[in-house]
Amino acid sequence: MQCHPHSSFVGSEFDEEGNLKIIAGEFRKSEFCQQHSLLPRDLRTIDTNTFYQKPSILVRSKAILVNMGHIKALLKSDSVILLDTYGSSDSYNQSVFIDDLQERLKSHKEGLPFEFRALEAILIAVTSSLQSEIEVLEGPVNKLLSDLEDLADIEESVSGYRLRDLLQYSKKLSKFEQDALSIRDVLEELLDHDDDLAAMYLTAKKEKQPRASVDHEEAELLLEAYLKQTEEIASKASTLRSHMRSTEEIVQIILDVSRNSLMWYDIRLTILTLSATVVSGYGALFGMNLRNYFEGDPFAFGLVSGLALLSGCGVFAVSVRKLKTLAKMKG
Amino acid sequence: MQCHPHSSFVGSEFDEEGNLKIIAGEFRKSEFCQQHSLLPRDLRTIDTNTFYQKPSILVRSKAILVNMGHIKALLKSDSVILLDTYGSSDSYNQSVFIDDLQERLKSHKEGLPFEFRALEAILIAVTSSLQSEIEVLEGPVNKLLSDLEDLADIEESVSGYRLRDLLQYSKKLSKFEQDALSIRDVLEELLDHDDDLAAMYLTAKKEKQPRASVDHEEAELLLEAYLKQTEEIASKASTLRSHMRSTEEIVQIILDVSRNSLMWYDIRLTILTLSATVVSGYGALFGMNLRNYFEGDPFAFGLVSGLALLSGCGVFAVSVRKLKTLAKMKG
Amino acid sequence: MQCHPHSSFVGSEFDEEGNLKIIAGEFRKSEFCQQHSLLPRDLRTIDTNTFYQKPSILVRSKAILVNMGHIKALLKSDSVILLDTYGSSDSYNQSVFIDDLQERLKSHKEGLPFEFRALEAILIAVTSSLQSEIEVLEGPVNKLLSDLEDLADIEESVSGYRLRDLLQYSKKLSKFEQDALSIRDVLEELLDHDDDLAAMYLTAKKEKQPRASVDHEEAELLLEAYLKQTEEIASKASTLRSHMRSTEEIVQIILDVSRNSLMWYDIRLTILTLSATVVSGYGALFGMNLRNYFEGDPFAFGLVSGLALLSGCGVFAVSVRKLKTLAKMKG
Amino acid sequence: MQCHPHSSFVGSEFDEEGNLKIIAGEFRKSEFCQQHSLLPRDLRTIDTNTFYQKPSILVRSKAILVNMGHIKALLKSDSVILLDTYGSSDSYNQSVFIDDLQERLKSHKEGLPFEFRALEAILIAVTSSLQSEIEVLEGPVNKLLSDLEDLADIEESVSGYRLRDLLQYSKKLSKFEQDALSIRDVLEELLDHDDDLAAMYLTAKKEKQPRASVDHEEAELLLEAYLKQTEEIASKASTLRSHMRSTEEIVQIILDVSRNSLMWYDIRLTILTLSATVVSGYGALFGMNLRNYFEGDPFAFGLVSGLALLSGCGVFAVSVRKLKTLAKMKG
Amino acid sequence: MQCHPHSSFVGSEFDEEGNLKIIAGEFRKSEFCQQHSLLPRDLRTIDTNTFYQKPSILVRSKAILVNMGHIKALLKSDSVILLDTYGSSDSYNQSVFIDDLQERLKSHKEGLPFEFRALEAILIAVTSSLQSEIEVLEGPVNKLLSDLEDLADIEESVSGYRLRDLLQYSKKLSKFEQDALSIRDVLEELLDHDDDLAAMYLTAKKEKQPRASVDHEEAELLLEAYLKQTEEIASKASTLRSHMRSTEEIVQIILDVSRNSLMWYDIRLTILTLSATVVSGYGALFGMNLRNYFEGDPFAFGLVSGLALLSGCGVFAVSVRKLKTLAKMKG
Repeated sequence: MQCHPHSSFVGSEFDEEGNLKIIAGEFRKSEFCQQHSLLPRDLRTIDTNTFYQKPSILVRSKAILVNMGHIKALLKSDSVILLDTYGSSDSYNQSVFIDDLQERLKSHKEGLPFEFRALEAILIAVTSSLQSEIEVLEGPVNKLLSDLEDLADIEESVSGYRLRDLLQYSKKLSKFEQDALSIRDVLEELLDHDDDLAAMYLTAKKEKQPRASVDHEEAELLLEAYLKQTEEIASKASTLRSHMRSTEEIVQIILDVSRNSLMWYDIRLTILTLSATVVSGYGALFGMNLRNYFEGDPFAFGLVSGLALLSGCGVFAVSVRKLKTLAKMKG
Repeated sequence: MQCHPHSSFVGSEFDEEGNLKIIAGEFRKSEFCQQHSLLPRDLRTIDTNTFYQKPSILVRSKAILVNMGHIKALLKSDSVILLDTYGSSDSYNQSVFIDDLQERLKSHKEGLPFEFRALEAILIAVTSSLQSEIEVLEGPVNKLLSDLEDLADIEESVSGYRLRDLLQYSKKLSKFEQDALSIRDVLEELLDHDDDLAAMYLTAKKEKQPRASVDHEEAELLLEAYLKQTEEIASKASTLRSHMRSTEEIVQIILDVSRNSLMWYDIRLTILTLSATVVSGYGALFGMNLRNYFEGDPFAFGLVSGLALLSGCGVFAVSVRKLKTLAKMKG
Repeated sequence: MQCHPHSSFVGSEFDEEGNLKIIAGEFRKSEFCQQHSLLPRDLRTIDTNTFYQKPSILVRSKAILVNMGHIKALLKSDSVILLDTYGSSDSYNQSVFIDDLQERLKSHKEGLPFEFRALEAILIAVTSSLQSEIEVLEGPVNKLLSDLEDLADIEESVSGYRLRDLLQYSKKLSKFEQDALSIRDVLEELLDHDDDLAAMYLTAKKEKQPRASVDHEEAELLLEAYLKQTEEIASKASTLRSHMRSTEEIVQIILDVSRNSLMWYDIRLTILTLSATVVSGYGALFGMNLRNYFEGDPFAFGLVSGLALLSGCGVFAVSVRKLKTLAKMKG
Repeated sequence: MQCHPHSSFVGSEFDEEGNLKIIAGEFRKSEFCQQHSLLPRDLRTIDTNTFYQKPSILVRSKAILVNMGHIKALLKSDSVILLDTYGSSDSYNQSVFIDDLQERLKSHKEGLPFEFRALEAILIAVTSSLQSEIEVLEGPVNKLLSDLEDLADIEESVSGYRLRDLLQYSKKLSKFEQDALSIRDVLEELLDHDDDLAAMYLTAKKEKQPRASVDHEEAELLLEAYLKQTEEIASKASTLRSHMRSTEEIVQIILDVSRNSLMWYDIRLTILTLSATVVSGYGALFGMNLRNYFEGDPFAFGLVSGLALLSGCGVFAVSVRKLKTLAKMKG
Repeated sequence: MQCHPHSSFVGSEFDEEGNLKIIAGEFRKSEFCQQHSLLPRDLRTIDTNTFYQKPSILVRSKAILVNMGHIKALLKSDSVILLDTYGSSDSYNQSVFIDDLQERLKSHKEGLPFEFRALEAILIAVTSSLQSEIEVLEGPVNKLLSDLEDLADIEESVSGYRLRDLLQYSKKLSKFEQDALSIRDVLEELLDHDDDLAAMYLTAKKEKQPRASVDHEEAELLLEAYLKQTEEIASKASTLRSHMRSTEEIVQIILDVSRNSLMWYDIRLTILTLSATVVSGYGALFGMNLRNYFEGDPFAFGLVSGLALLSGCGVFAVSVRKLKTLAKMKG
């Protein structure tokens, strides 16, 4: 957590024309701070060694520090330093981002100053990455939810692994939503502070024409556009999560209804078993090796058997009627 | 996600008198931007190819960009361009909207400037569509909920499809509420920004008499009226959803109570079965082909039978009393 | 949803002294708008034909439009027009309200201007009606909740109708709370807008002495008093609803505990049945018409019977011990 | 709900030195209003006959009306009128409060003006009473929760009264938290209104030196201190309630796990019963008084008995294996 | 709750160079207040005898009172008084904090004034302690949650102690999150009050150069940095708690699915038992010592046995088909 003044980090520097000036160079933190008028505390924002980081955009006198998603960068009025974040330097997305960044730095398009062109490249990369992440999650989650709806029908083949998948996706979506909302919060907070928006015009400040605190339309429009995109993505994630919750709740009711159905059926079986047991009871008593005085009676077998079966049927009828009363009473 | 400067979109243009100037014409984005003083970024708002879109009203120097529900439009001080949104061009609602729009553009009614007459036509179309959507959902949802209340009574005929319907409606309502709230948010946000409200007076601006930032009463009253309607619709949806939740919760308790009732009944059946089994036990033991010395005893059959039945009744009585003690103990 | 300029509504007008000038007269909307400097859009607020309405107080240049609970009125500096709302014109509360209104209009009490005296009469009627509504709900809900607490004790006599009542009351309370909160929101929003508060002084405006935007103490104190009452009523409803939820949750746990108790008992019965079945098993085998070589043995009956009973007891003892181990293992 | 101008209330008055001037005197509302420059509406705040009251502090031109907890008082620059609230006049806390009030009124300590010394006495009494209330609730609630954690272990002795206690405490805590938050809201709202804070300096106003709207440091510090205490107490209640909820949830899962364990055990018993019933089945068939041609066979008894037992064991083995497959399949 | 003017507390004082001037000295409250221009009320903030304390930073004219986590301190422009908090004086963290504090007080680093160097030492100690607390909780909670996911598979070995652990961790995490949020609230509130931020420059005030209300950049940056860290830690706790909740919910569904599976299996066993009981029934009836006229029939045994087995199979087949119909009907 504490600041080590002599430590360093690895990064790449792009010049005014988008050319790579320094590739994977090592920057000493103390020099870095002095050079860009930063406080050691500011560096924590883009420090590659701290976990649990929330995204942030810090506007300082001569530089803008950006830490969003996998991109950590320092924007100046004439150069961009991109910090190497662990594990992401070789990825496809990273190279798409660098190409786009270089093109934008070169292009002078839309009349935007250098630092805003760099910022837009970063914002595009971040929102694209969020976009593809949610698209990757959306398919399997929807598949899983529709599988779960059919859950209660399939007899014993309901496998627990689907529910465990649900848990995994629920955690992932919750984390994703939180990430997207963090990025939205950063943009929103920046938009709420007129001073910071005006202070983002590094080129203007360098040319000794700093913007007044209310004069920051380009910055505002730029950030608003990506704020809106991030909100849309976050709300997609939130919708998915709410579908998850609804499905979970309904699945629980389906399981409950299922269980009650099974209990009704089980009770009917128990009634039948009881009836058969009653019949057996007669048989068992008259089967005792004891003198029952009907041994020779020619009609006894028929009578007792009949009585036994009648008793069985009687027990069955009474029980079933009782069961129906039970159902009606609750009505 | 990225802007293709040479792409185009299809739309229709209405002139100052509400006449169709261009029908399903193709507008090139780059020309479109130049002509109406828009930035390419602004176009994303009404870009027909982006999904996950939230509604929005963008006020720019010479135009108002509107994207609400199925309507995407560009309002100017003397013309309205309506973008063709996929799948909705042939619908009945769309033609009702276009008739209403044309009439309003022609009518000069209420002394409202051209751009506000167009905006009101859009707002009416959007709120009407929300209104009819909620009315379509309301009937079946209420029917379904009242069916579910009766759920626990009907023996085994509870079909899972009703619960799946509930899930579908729950998702639809949740999406509808979110949509309505998004539209409300757009109106509310616009009402919160005095600058934007004043900037909406395109005609005034064109006549070189731009409104002061506090002078926007007509715009405010117009938006407030539809804000209120949207809020009422959203709150209807929210009420329906809360009824859903209440019903779900009560149905779960009904099922639980039902299950406990069934268990009480099941236990009584088990007690009877136990009693009958005990009776059979006596019979089985005395039925063994072994010398029990009572074979010839004239009263043995009566005695043993009586003892067996007495044991059965005893087991029954003890078990039932125990069951009642259990019920009382919990009191 | 659209405005029909030639339609009309029915209402009664009271003059400066509280006398009924027009009884159930018909007002044409278009004339009405012109006469009171209203826009057609404003009329929607008190339009008797629109459902899903939220309450509102609209302050316009020469009139205040009020729509709260069953009362829809237009207040002017020298007259009050009360719209006839369907189904409520003959009620007792309505006549109490009209008496109170007339008395207040006459009385000049507290030095309040005419329009505020009328408004206070309306606010008193609205809060009284909310008050009596919550009092009507409170009794049966508390009775029901205390009945439900005792629910799990009563054997099979738990009738589903109580749970359905709970659902009905839950919906009613939720609606009531929403209504009360809507009224509170209207008052609160009005209190938040200094302009509107000042604009409420219709008499002062008529006398060409409009109040400054900060000079509205009487209006503020008046609205605050009823805001507080409405909040108290809403919080009463919210407390009742939270009691409902707590009771539901506890009842579910009571049912769960009950169910587990029943299962313990059921298992003990099953153990007994198993034991009796084992005893019968010996009997059945030795009862076969097969030569078992013990037929003549004088002690066989005792031995086998003893063995059978011993086996039964053994099975019983082992099963019960296992059950206790199960209970301990979870500790 | 309506104001009866000629009604009165009972109260005690303390003079500048804390001496009791009037004991349980009767104050006529109309005179009271006139004397202290109050509106009849203001009196509702301390009206002893209205239920559902939320606490409040009303700052008026010459008096501060306080209604918090059981204390209803009118503070002036040179006297304090304490209203007798029903049922609390004889309590120990009340007398402690009056002693403290008198001492503070006498003491001139901290250089605070008379009205603030009175207010502080009230705030101390209110927070002390909240404090002791939460301390009284805390012990039994924690005891109850730890009892409930052990709930699922104890066989049948789980008594429903503990769950009913939980419900009672849940309601009490919820009410308590609401009360504490209402008091916090009153203090917070007062702190948010600079005008009201400045208007509280009654003594200064009487001396014709009213405080400017921003000059109210003592009032602010005084209210802030008790705001903080009230917040701490409310958060204590909220923590207790959240522990309740967590315990309820876990207890439900414990009960669920318990139930599944019981079902496993029940199924094993059912398997044993089935096996024994199969054995009996052989016995019953060969026990029929029918010619089975094995009557004389010397090995038949052993063979059939063996076959029966083997069948029983086979059924047992197959069923148990099936049960284990079921457990694995879900893995 | 009341202030005892003659009571005292124990603390240590550090001078301008970080040297310990007073070790565990006793400070009399009344003198302490006079010396540092504090009100008795202010002391409650760092009073070691009050429980239920929320963290706070009080900015007074000549001192800053800090109460965060286990650290209670009074910062002046030239000295720091650290109060001994019970039970924490001997801990390792406390000594690390004191070393860091002394070093910072000595170092004059970053050009920060004395009081901010002291404050930073405290903030670092507080965030480090939060950080290590959450790290200590994270491991076992994640272990526990992954154990619980596997819960439903393991037959009877699910021990209740894991669920009780879950409850304990849930309470701990909830408390931790609340603590972290309280600290965040303190920092946020301070950042929201420009006056207090400016008033924190004690050294500047002592040098008669008090900061203007808007000139407090160092204070703002310092507090913001630790605000961000606290937020990150709190959000970590919140994520863990939300994982807990998701796991609990899924575990409940897994248990429900499990239970339904067990019920299906139980019903199949019941069907088998019923079939065997039906077979026994035939045997019992024909085993009666009554004349059934088939005694001598050579085929009777085969026929009746066959009929019995057929009946058993029939009952089995019908019951199983019924069960399958039940499953389909729900589809």
